[in-house]
Amino acid sequence: MKVVIVGGVAGGMSAATRLRRLNEDARIVVFERGAHVSFANCGLPYYAGGVIDDRDALLLQTPESLAARFELDVRVRTEVTSIDPEARAVTVRDLTTGVESVETYDELVLSPGASPIVPDLPGVERALVLRDVEDVDRLVGAVDGSARTAVIVGAGFIGIELAENLRRRGLDVTVVELADQVLGPLDPEMAAPVADELRANGVRLELGNQVTAIGADAVTLGDGGTVPADVVVMAIGVRPESALAVAAGIATGPRGGIAVDETMRTSADHVYAVGDAVEKIDAVSGQSGLVPLANPANRQGRLVADVISGLPVRPRPVVGTAIVGAFTLMAAAVGWNEKRLRAADRPYRAIHTHPQSHAGYYPGAQGMSLKLLVDPDTDAILGAQGVGGEGVDKRIDVIATAMVGGVTASELADLELAYAPQFGSAKDPVNMLGYVADNLRAGTAATIQWHELPAALDAGATLVDVRTPAEFAAGSIPGAVNIELDALRGRADELPAGELVVTCQVGQRGHTAARILRQLGCDVRNLDGGYRTWVAGAVRTDTLV
Amino acid sequence: MKVVIVGGVAGGMSAATRLRRLNEDARIVVFERGAHVSFANCGLPYYAGGVIDDRDALLLQTPESLAARFELDVRVRTEVTSIDPEARAVTVRDLTTGVESVETYDELVLSPGASPIVPDLPGVERALVLRDVEDVDRLVGAVDGSARTAVIVGAGFIGIELAENLRRRGLDVTVVELADQVLGPLDPEMAAPVADELRANGVRLELGNQVTAIGADAVTLGDGGTVPADVVVMAIGVRPESALAVAAGIATGPRGGIAVDETMRTSADHVYAVGDAVEKIDAVSGQSGLVPLANPANRQGRLVADVISGLPVRPRPVVGTAIVGAFTLMAAAVGWNEKRLRAADRPYRAIHTHPQSHAGYYPGAQGMSLKLLVDPDTDAILGAQGVGGEGVDKRIDVIATAMVGGVTASELADLELAYAPQFGSAKDPVNMLGYVADNLRAGTAATIQWHELPAALDAGATLVDVRTPAEFAAGSIPGAVNIELDALRGRADELPAGELVVTCQVGQRGHTAARILRQLGCDVRNLDGGYRTWVAGAVRTDTLV
Repeated sequence: MKVVIVGGVAGGMSAATRLRRLNEDARIVVFERGAHVSFANCGLPYYAGGVIDDRDALLLQTPESLAARFELDVRVRTEVTSIDPEARAVTVRDLTTGVESVETYDELVLSPGASPIVPDLPGVERALVLRDVEDVDRLVGAVDGSARTAVIVGAGFIGIELAENLRRRGLDVTVVELADQVLGPLDPEMAAPVADELRANGVRLELGNQVTAIGADAVTLGDGGTVPADVVVMAIGVRPESALAVAAGIATGPRGGIAVDETMRTSADHVYAVGDAVEKIDAVSGQSGLVPLANPANRQGRLVADVISGLPVRPRPVVGTAIVGAFTLMAAAVGWNEKRLRAADRPYRAIHTHPQSHAGYYPGAQGMSLKLLVDPDTDAILGAQGVGGEGVDKRIDVIATAMVGGVTASELADLELAYAPQFGSAKDPVNMLGYVADNLRAGTAATIQWHELPAALDAGATLVDVRTPAEFAAGSIPGAVNIELDALRGRADELPAGELVVTCQVGQRGHTAARILRQLGCDVRNLDGGYRTWVAGAVRTDTLV
Repeated sequence: MKVVIVGGVAGGMSAATRLRRLNEDARIVVFERGAHVSFANCGLPYYAGGVIDDRDALLLQTPESLAARFELDVRVRTEVTSIDPEARAVTVRDLTTGVESVETYDELVLSPGASPIVPDLPGVERALVLRDVEDVDRLVGAVDGSARTAVIVGAGFIGIELAENLRRRGLDVTVVELADQVLGPLDPEMAAPVADELRANGVRLELGNQVTAIGADAVTLGDGGTVPADVVVMAIGVRPESALAVAAGIATGPRGGIAVDETMRTSADHVYAVGDAVEKIDAVSGQSGLVPLANPANRQGRLVADVISGLPVRPRPVVGTAIVGAFTLMAAAVGWNEKRLRAADRPYRAIHTHPQSHAGYYPGAQGMSLKLLVDPDTDAILGAQGVGGEGVDKRIDVIATAMVGGVTASELADLELAYAPQFGSAKDPVNMLGYVADNLRAGTAATIQWHELPAALDAGATLVDVRTPAEFAAGSIPGAVNIELDALRGRADELPAGELVVTCQVGQRGHTAARILRQLGCDVRNLDGGYRTWVAGAVRTDTLV
């Protein structure tokens, strides 16, 4: 058996090494257009910032090491220019010599990845991107030279990582983002703390703005302003590299990625595809979509090797867990966010909490904000987001696992998570999300979201802030009246008839207040996530959802 | 409705506050024998060590704060001395005045907890225990006084936390443990790094030894030795406080805890019990057992409030997730360990790995050891253990969640866990456990455990170490021959006929070696966890399993 693999990173290399372990006799040829295989692409921003100071640390394998251990025939700087599925052959060009040749295969695996989107702007040829080692070499060359200012276009995961790392190198950094928020995978009120953190670390944010032209040492913005930019990096997203497949008549999916079935087979016989170039089945919707992440790429690489080797495989829809560091914060997400649910007109419940990373009585606990999205009919978890200084990764990983295991939102309350006071809480933040979900499911709680509050107040609802007078004085929602929780039973008769909304700092006292008032016969909802979520949503973002 | 609750910590207080939120009109009386309710019992060792320096931080609530917010009638220093289920009444004694009175109830919730086991030894009246705030006051008083030496009896979770914290206060600390290992919930090879860490931090360990008598300033050991001991703390375990229930004719379970059904009902009408005092259903075996942990106690407290309030509840078998810090290490476990599986004669597969806490190319990754136990018939996860410097809590939490969600061992490979290089790996340590499990399930890998190796070698197997010559020279298993992995294909003809065992540092290169040799027709198994597990098991523990 001869297997040809196009692309020597993540999915391609996972496929190659697994294939070798399963088929000692197979001939395995890997073509990689770039100069390096199996490099640490997720480490590139941190090499640019000097956190990873040894360039060799990025190069996890070389063609020589892969030949020695796995008898792989790895050819770098070699581009596959066409596929002939009928002949089971690919045409390859040696990018050093320009010589073309034909390579036959029994099975072909496409793992070409996704390429940074570079819009057609005046001057865009000066813009850098960050996809491979050559890219980061160019970026480091620029930063080590005379560059003092940088504009990063796009405030997604890579844009934010770059902003942090170029600040680390001392540059003046501006991030320009078309949306009104950073970090599109998160909802605006969850992304707001990340924007604050970026600004607090000297990153200038141009949200709701765009670059319209790139000049010699500056960029022009859509609002007419200019920003100095010795370096411009495009980080607005990636698109699947499907051109090679399309040219060979291989089908693509609705989002432009290569279409594959559950076994990674494309529409052409003996041609498989994996990784960022293919469309994947979304676990929440069952629909096809693009999820350019390392974990699914690697697992698809292994899976395609199993398929080619005749082993049975499991279908694997994706939940799309992702995380990013931003100076002292981390932000992570899994599944769908509220924006997407609203856009799809899909019913949901949203839950916001602001727990601490571990028991508050043990020193060093750090605050975080969590958000859970729940199917109101089935209680299934639709997605989650978290932002904070510590322990967000753990909670999102637990929720991602719960989603895969079919643990419902309410059942999060039952999870037994490792507790000693330096690591968590007897009622872990994930448990608390479950408790809230259980109350909503059972009807023992009713909440209102931050972005629903204006309409409720306009309709005449009374907003009751049950925090202490001191907390209330330090900042409150316009129009709120203050009745401290511990005085509420005695002062409930002060409240007018009609709908009530209660609020506190994070939503917990508000829940107790709502329980008291409900049992007194009031029509009451608790402001989900309390004052803190309201501030993050209504104040710190520029627009309501 | 009048509800009487016996015990004002964890389960009892969770029940009381939830009851109030559900029943604004109920009368709720909480009797607590001690001077404090709702204190942070898991924080006591860290207060003893000065990590938590404010004693008030331990006192999360007071009777006054609970009255103000939840209208609870909390009576501390008040002991319930008998229950009359027929009359629905308890007799209570005010421990300050000695006055007895009778309190009737509609529903009674028992949450008396578990008490430290104090063996009947000469001089044991001098020994301290660590259960409540009064206990820690005594301990701190001793440590702040003239104490310079301490003996802690028992190397379980509390014993180890105490050892660390008394070292922090400058005492000479000896831990005496009857078993041959520390941390009984872990298997010996997983506990070995914790023992190393304790010794490296100046804790003297007396394993396989016991205290036979306690003198004025020293203890006598079972081997005849003596150890100076200004302070002696008993931490050999706890037993459920079931005496009050037993005296009332309430049934107990096979392990001596109060017997309850899935709704926390005892054998007496209108009497419920929760927390460390009750037997719980083990998720792995479906059998009744004792699991004295904070998380199940809290969730049972909430559950019993729901039951009393007429809400539907879910049955909740326990997996028993637990964690302990030991200086720079953390050690965690969930489900069953290998010792227990062997003792129960239950079939299992064991998997050991030694991953890093995050991508190795990003600075600061810390090593950890993980162990997974798998049902060979169903591929169900039976348990897991971890020890390391960072990120162990996250992996055990993910596995605990997978167990609850019915995610199989092989399916751990499919989990999408948040990856950026400072937080994890594209193939997370949990994914890697899944990959190994999948190989074992599919038969593409066969392993041998460290404790099975001596018998295999005695039976004539050849042990092949595929690490580099330099690694081999730095320490190897007696009798091993060294053929570096990258030379194995060329040198396989040097190997004798008969069974082969391959090994490397952590098991990963051994897997590739085994795949090569298997396809050459060899009868080969890979030493699970490699040299590192073998050293931890065969060298660093005193006995084989």
